[in-house]
Amino acid sequence: MIKAAVLGATGYAGAELMRILSQHKDVEIVYPASHSYAGSKFSDIYPGMKGVLDMVLREDDIEKAAEEADVIFLSLPAGLASSLVTDKILSSAVVIDLGADFRLHDKAVYEAWYRTEHHSPSLLQEAVYGLAEIHRDEIRGKRLIANPGCYTTCSIMTLYPLVKNGLIEKDGIIIDAKSGTSGSGRGEKLGSLFCEVNESIKAYGVTTHRHTPEIEQELSLAAGESIVLQFTPHLVPMNRGILADCYAHLVSGVTEKDVEEAYSVYKDEPFVRIVSNPPETRYVKGTNCIDISWRLDKRTGNIVAMGAIDNLVKGAAGQAVQNMNIVFGLEETEGLSLGAGCPF
Amino acid sequence: MIKAAVLGATGYAGAELMRILSQHKDVEIVYPASHSYAGSKFSDIYPGMKGVLDMVLREDDIEKAAEEADVIFLSLPAGLASSLVTDKILSSAVVIDLGADFRLHDKAVYEAWYRTEHHSPSLLQEAVYGLAEIHRDEIRGKRLIANPGCYTTCSIMTLYPLVKNGLIEKDGIIIDAKSGTSGSGRGEKLGSLFCEVNESIKAYGVTTHRHTPEIEQELSLAAGESIVLQFTPHLVPMNRGILADCYAHLVSGVTEKDVEEAYSVYKDEPFVRIVSNPPETRYVKGTNCIDISWRLDKRTGNIVAMGAIDNLVKGAAGQAVQNMNIVFGLEETEGLSLGAGCPF
Amino acid sequence: MIKAAVLGATGYAGAELMRILSQHKDVEIVYPASHSYAGSKFSDIYPGMKGVLDMVLREDDIEKAAEEADVIFLSLPAGLASSLVTDKILSSAVVIDLGADFRLHDKAVYEAWYRTEHHSPSLLQEAVYGLAEIHRDEIRGKRLIANPGCYTTCSIMTLYPLVKNGLIEKDGIIIDAKSGTSGSGRGEKLGSLFCEVNESIKAYGVTTHRHTPEIEQELSLAAGESIVLQFTPHLVPMNRGILADCYAHLVSGVTEKDVEEAYSVYKDEPFVRIVSNPPETRYVKGTNCIDISWRLDKRTGNIVAMGAIDNLVKGAAGQAVQNMNIVFGLEETEGLSLGAGCPF
Amino acid sequence: MIKAAVLGATGYAGAELMRILSQHKDVEIVYPASHSYAGSKFSDIYPGMKGVLDMVLREDDIEKAAEEADVIFLSLPAGLASSLVTDKILSSAVVIDLGADFRLHDKAVYEAWYRTEHHSPSLLQEAVYGLAEIHRDEIRGKRLIANPGCYTTCSIMTLYPLVKNGLIEKDGIIIDAKSGTSGSGRGEKLGSLFCEVNESIKAYGVTTHRHTPEIEQELSLAAGESIVLQFTPHLVPMNRGILADCYAHLVSGVTEKDVEEAYSVYKDEPFVRIVSNPPETRYVKGTNCIDISWRLDKRTGNIVAMGAIDNLVKGAAGQAVQNMNIVFGLEETEGLSLGAGCPF
Repeated sequence: MIKAAVLGATGYAGAELMRILSQHKDVEIVYPASHSYAGSKFSDIYPGMKGVLDMVLREDDIEKAAEEADVIFLSLPAGLASSLVTDKILSSAVVIDLGADFRLHDKAVYEAWYRTEHHSPSLLQEAVYGLAEIHRDEIRGKRLIANPGCYTTCSIMTLYPLVKNGLIEKDGIIIDAKSGTSGSGRGEKLGSLFCEVNESIKAYGVTTHRHTPEIEQELSLAAGESIVLQFTPHLVPMNRGILADCYAHLVSGVTEKDVEEAYSVYKDEPFVRIVSNPPETRYVKGTNCIDISWRLDKRTGNIVAMGAIDNLVKGAAGQAVQNMNIVFGLEETEGLSLGAGCPF
Repeated sequence: MIKAAVLGATGYAGAELMRILSQHKDVEIVYPASHSYAGSKFSDIYPGMKGVLDMVLREDDIEKAAEEADVIFLSLPAGLASSLVTDKILSSAVVIDLGADFRLHDKAVYEAWYRTEHHSPSLLQEAVYGLAEIHRDEIRGKRLIANPGCYTTCSIMTLYPLVKNGLIEKDGIIIDAKSGTSGSGRGEKLGSLFCEVNESIKAYGVTTHRHTPEIEQELSLAAGESIVLQFTPHLVPMNRGILADCYAHLVSGVTEKDVEEAYSVYKDEPFVRIVSNPPETRYVKGTNCIDISWRLDKRTGNIVAMGAIDNLVKGAAGQAVQNMNIVFGLEETEGLSLGAGCPF
Repeated sequence: MIKAAVLGATGYAGAELMRILSQHKDVEIVYPASHSYAGSKFSDIYPGMKGVLDMVLREDDIEKAAEEADVIFLSLPAGLASSLVTDKILSSAVVIDLGADFRLHDKAVYEAWYRTEHHSPSLLQEAVYGLAEIHRDEIRGKRLIANPGCYTTCSIMTLYPLVKNGLIEKDGIIIDAKSGTSGSGRGEKLGSLFCEVNESIKAYGVTTHRHTPEIEQELSLAAGESIVLQFTPHLVPMNRGILADCYAHLVSGVTEKDVEEAYSVYKDEPFVRIVSNPPETRYVKGTNCIDISWRLDKRTGNIVAMGAIDNLVKGAAGQAVQNMNIVFGLEETEGLSLGAGCPF
Repeated sequence: MIKAAVLGATGYAGAELMRILSQHKDVEIVYPASHSYAGSKFSDIYPGMKGVLDMVLREDDIEKAAEEADVIFLSLPAGLASSLVTDKILSSAVVIDLGADFRLHDKAVYEAWYRTEHHSPSLLQEAVYGLAEIHRDEIRGKRLIANPGCYTTCSIMTLYPLVKNGLIEKDGIIIDAKSGTSGSGRGEKLGSLFCEVNESIKAYGVTTHRHTPEIEQELSLAAGESIVLQFTPHLVPMNRGILADCYAHLVSGVTEKDVEEAYSVYKDEPFVRIVSNPPETRYVKGTNCIDISWRLDKRTGNIVAMGAIDNLVKGAAGQAVQNMNIVFGLEETEGLSLGAGCPF
C-alpha cells in the first residue's frame, strides 16, 4: 500500500482527492490534513463521506506528513507550496502539488502573473509538468510533480496535436473557456453565493487570468517557438465541468484528414475520447476523461477545437492520482472513473 | 460471472443500472435492450459511457433475455412487466422488476391506483417486496423481486422503525416528499423541459400519487394494522435526490431514547446512516445510502423524521443491484457506492 | 410624491424594495442607506440598476432619514430596528419594518424565540401586523407597520380562511415550506455558496424556526383560541419563491363547497389568486401575488392547502410597498406587479 | 390605443411579448393567437398571467388579425411568415416579424442557410432590419420590420462601433456566444429536458448556425466591405440571457481612447449601458438593455468585446416593442424595463 498525505484536504479539490484515494485499492490515506479543520473528522466537514472517511484531520504539517507518507499531495493557496517543499521533504516523499507553484519553469513569469515571490526557485528545474498525455516519460522518475491547472489541462490537451503538428497558425489562437463554480473554491466570497452565480454567465480575468502563461508555456514547447494567445475564462451556473473552445487559423492546405491524424496521437490514451458531437461537460462529470471534438470551417479557414473535462477530476484530483499511479508504477487508470452517469 | 440482461436500458433508471453493473466485478451484461434504441450502441445514447459501454442495444425481448442471462432487470413502463413475466421466464432467470407491477400484494389495490389491468396476478404471491433492510431474508430465495419505488424506499425506511416499535400514532402520518427531476423520466414532456422546471417548485399528484398504497402496504405490515396516510410529492429543480419529511404524532410518553433505540435496528446496515443534522440529498448523491435524522418537538408532540436518498440509486438501480447481490449470495455492497463527493 | 428612506438598501430584500420603489409613480427615494456600502452608488452594488438607481448610499441613520422622508423602510438584522425606532421617529415618519422586531405582540415570545432583548417593548402595542389581506383596516391609521415574514405571509394566508371558519382541527396543523435561496440573504456564509446549495434540498430549523410563533400568533387570533403547530422550512436550489404545503384534519362534515366559500374571503383581493392546479413558485415570481390551491382527501380526512409567493416581493418588499400604499391612501396595487413572465 | 395582434403568442418569445404589451400603456391586445392553443385562455397556458391576460387565444389567421389590428407581431417557425405576409396585409397593418424570414436582404443567402424556399422575395426590399440603435431612421416609415435574432442583436451591437470605425481587422473576428435555454424554445425535445441541460454546457451549430449570415450582413454594411466571421453558440443551464464574447485583432495603433470614442456612438441610447466590469447576463434579465464592456490586450493585440442581453427581451419581444414604439411615434422606452432586480 502506498501511504498518502493530503494537505489542504477540505477544499473542493482536496476533498475530491480524498474521495478518489478512498476508492484506490493500492493507497492508504495516512495523513489527511486541513489547516481550517484540524481536529475534526473529515466526514463532519464532508458528510457525504460518513462511514467512508471518518478519520480525524491533522494540521498542514509537511514535515510530519513526509515522515509518515510515501506521497504528499498539496492542495494549498498559491505561494504556500513553494515555501514548504524542500530537498529534504523530497528525499523522503514524492510531492504532487495541485497548486501553481511549480508549473511555470520561469520564475520571472511566475512572479509577474502571480504577483508574489517564489520561495524555492531551485526546485523549478526539478519539477515536472504533470500532464501525463504529454510528459508521461518525464513524470516516471520524478519526486516533484506540478499537477496542471484545470483550464490549462483542458486547453493544452485540446490544442496540443494541432500545435505539435504545425497545423495551425501560431498567431491568433483564442481560447474561450467555461467553468463550473467549484473552480472558484470553497471560500466564503460574495461572488460565489448561490444567488450571485445562479441564472447568469460572465467572463472574468479577461486578458489577465493566471492560467494563460501555463498554456503558453506548454504550447510553445510543443511548437518549438513562442506562442502568445488569448485566454478568457467564464463562470457557469453548474457545479463542475470545463469546456474550452479553441479557435485557430488553419495553415494553408490542412485537411480534415490531417487533423484526424494529428489527434490520433491520443489513440491509446485511456482518458482521451475523440467524439463526433461537440463535447458536453456532463459526459465527463466525475471521470478523469477529456472529450475532444473539432470542426473545420471552410468559410473562415479556422478550426474550432473543443475539449471538455471535469475540473475537479482531470483538472485536479484525478490527474494527481493519475500522476501518482505513473510515479509508483501502477496501472495508470487505477482508482479513476472512465464513465459518467447521466443525469448526475 | 453473473450474466445480466437489462430491458429498458436507456431510461434514466435503466441507464444508471447499466452504469452500476459495468462497475460490478461479478457481473457481465450480456443482454442490454431498449425498444426505442435497439440497434444503437448504448454509448451513442449515453455518450458519458463511451469506451465503457459500447455494446449494441437489442430489442426488449424477455424470452431471448431469459435464454442468455441469469438475471433480468426490467425498467419498463407500468403494466408492461406484468404481461411479460411468466413462470417459464422465472424458471430460467431471476427477474428484478424496477417498475410497480409486482410491488402491491393486492391486485385490486394495484388496479385501483394504476387504472390498468394486472396481467399476471398469480405471480403477485411469488414476488417479494425488495426492500432489503426489511425483507432481506425473504429476498434470498426468490426468483421475482419487486424493486421498491423511489419515494417509497425513502418514506418506508424513514418511518419503519417508528411504526414497527409502536412509537407513533397510526393515524395522521404525513409524508411531504421532494424529488429531483430525473424521477420524471426521459420522456419528451412539456413539464420536463428545463425552462418549465428550473427556478420553481411545485407539488403534484396531491392525494393521488401511486406510491401511496405501496408505502401504506409496507407500514401496515410493520404495524400489524392498517395504516392510511397522506403523501405529497414535489418536483425540485435538481437532477437527483429525494427528501422525505415524515410527520407523526408520538405516542404519549415516548422519549428521545426510545426513538434512538428504534432506529438502532439499522445499526449494522451498510447503506443506512443515522445523521445528526437534517439530511441533504447531495450527501447521498450517487450512493446507495439513505441518510436519516429526526427531531422530537415537545411543543407539538410530533416527531419530524427525515430521510434522503438518490432516487436513481437506492431508489431504483442501486437497490436493484443490492437485491441481485442478495439473491446471488454476493457481498451486499458489491458494486455500490457508499460515499458521495461534494459538490457533484 | 411620497419621500421614502430605505435603511438596509443593499440586502436582497432592501434592494428589491429599491427596485420596486423606483417604478412607483408616487414615490421618490430620498434617503437610500446601507451601513456596509455607504458612499457607494447603489448601482455599483447592483449593476442591474445602472441608469435607474445611481444615487449614492448614505449611512443607516434613522434620525436623518426621519428628517427627510415621509416613510422609512427598515431592512435590518433582527434586534436592530427595536433599538432605532422611537416615538420621536414615528412622529415625523411612518416606519415600515421588514424585520421581525415588531411582529410579535408578546415581548416574552419574541425574546424566547429570538434570544435577544427587545429594546422598545412599549411600541409593540403601537405596531400593526402588516398583512393587508387580514389587517387592512388596522393598517390604515398606523405609524408603525411590522411587515410580515416570508414564510409567515405564505403560511398564514393559505391557512387563514380554514382557521377563521373553523373548518379544520386546531391540533395537528403541519406546514412544510420550501424557499429559494435569496431567503438566506446576501451574507458570505458557507451554506449559501452556489456549490453548497445547488443540486440539493434540505430542511433546516426543524422545530425551532423563528417564523413559527408569528404564524401561530396570527392563526390563533383568527381561531379565537391558541394554536400550536409544526413548521418546517427547506432550502431549494432556486433564487426566489416560497411554497407552503399546509396539512390539517378537516372538521367532520366539512365539504369542498365549505372550503370554497371560506376562500371566497379573498375574492376581491387583487393579490390573491385561487388556482386549480397545485401552485408553482415560478408563476408568482416577481409579483406581489399569492397563488393558493387545495385538495380534500377523503381517504385521510385531511385538507392539503398550498400557497406560493415570491419571498422577496409578497414575502418582503412588495408587501411593504402594499402597506405603504394603504397607509398613504394610494391605490393598493400601485407599483406592484400582478403578472409573472415565464420562464424568468 | 394601438391595437395589437400576436400570432404565435404561446411560444416563449410570443408569451414574453404578450406580457410586455400588457404593461404598455398605449397598447391593447386585440388579437392574441396560437395555432396550438386556439380556444384556450392565455392564462391557462401561462398561469403566471392569471388575472392579467385571461383573453381567449384565436387561430393564427393573419387576415383576420389585419382587419382588427394596427400592428401584427409574428412569432412563428422559420419559413411561415414569408408565406403569410402580403402587400395587402401590409396595407392594413404594420408587421413586426420576430422570425428570420425578412432579416436577410439576399434571398439566396436565406435559402442557403435556412434550407427552405423564401415565399415572398419581393418583400425583402421593403423590410427593414429592426435594430433601432443602427437603423432607427429607416425603421420610422416602414410597414414591415424584421426583428433581429437574439444572438445577432447581441453580437452586432457589441461589434458595430469597432467595425464602423475601422478599429479592428476585418478578418479573424470570432464570436463565442452563450445562451440560456429559453432560446431553444418550448418544443418537447429531448435536448431541452431539464435533466439533459442542467449541470452541463456545450457548443452547438458550430460553423453552421443560422444567425451567422445575419451578423455578417450587418457588420459588412457597417464596414463597407464583406466580413466573414466565426460564430459559435452555446447552451447554458439558465433560463434567460445571452453573452457574446467578440474577439478581434486591433488595427495597428488603435488605443483605448479610440475604442471609447467609438462606443460613444451609444451615449444617448436608452438601452445601451457601457460597463466597466465584464457584463453578466443577470444584470440585464427582464430588461431591454445591452451591457457592453471590453478589454484591450497588449500582449496579443486583440480586443475582447463582451455584450450581454436578455434573449427574450432585447433579443426578441422587447426589441419588437421598441420597434413598434418607433414606428408609431411613441416614446422609445415605453413599456420596456431598464432595470434588473437581483437575484431574479
